[in-house]
Amino acid sequence: MTELPFAPVSRIIKNAGAQRVSEDATESLTKVLEEKGEEIALAAVKLAKHAGRKTVKAADIELAIKSL
Amino acid sequence: MTELPFAPVSRIIKNAGAQRVSEDATESLTKVLEEKGEEIALAAVKLAKHAGRKTVKAADIELAIKSL
Repeated sequence: MTELPFAPVSRIIKNAGAQRVSEDATESLTKVLEEKGEEIALAAVKLAKHAGRKTVKAADIELAIKSL
Repeated sequence: MTELPFAPVSRIIKNAGAQRVSEDATESLTKVLEEKGEEIALAAVKLAKHAGRKTVKAADIELAIKSL
């Protein structure tokens, strides 16, 4: 199970010009985006803790992306 | 506006160990994941067309990820 729902990911593929999208294509892209999100989130949480904060801010996300 | 909703992305950050997540952190990660999704989707649509298919399949998503 992913946190991200399938329907919006399917729409992203349709918006990119797909006439039809198979269920497994949507599932595959959803999983990849979830994994990428988890990877960035883990790095961002470490950066927030390093800065002595309990709140993860956009600056943590942005620095996490650059550092990965 | 993004196709991806904010709430599940906020949960991904919380699941990574965040005590609190600012709104702009969620927005920032959502945008990044959406852009990554669009990039992969555009490449996958090209690959499906190249294979003479109207349907984007998981194999297109997987090859798109490898080629990016």
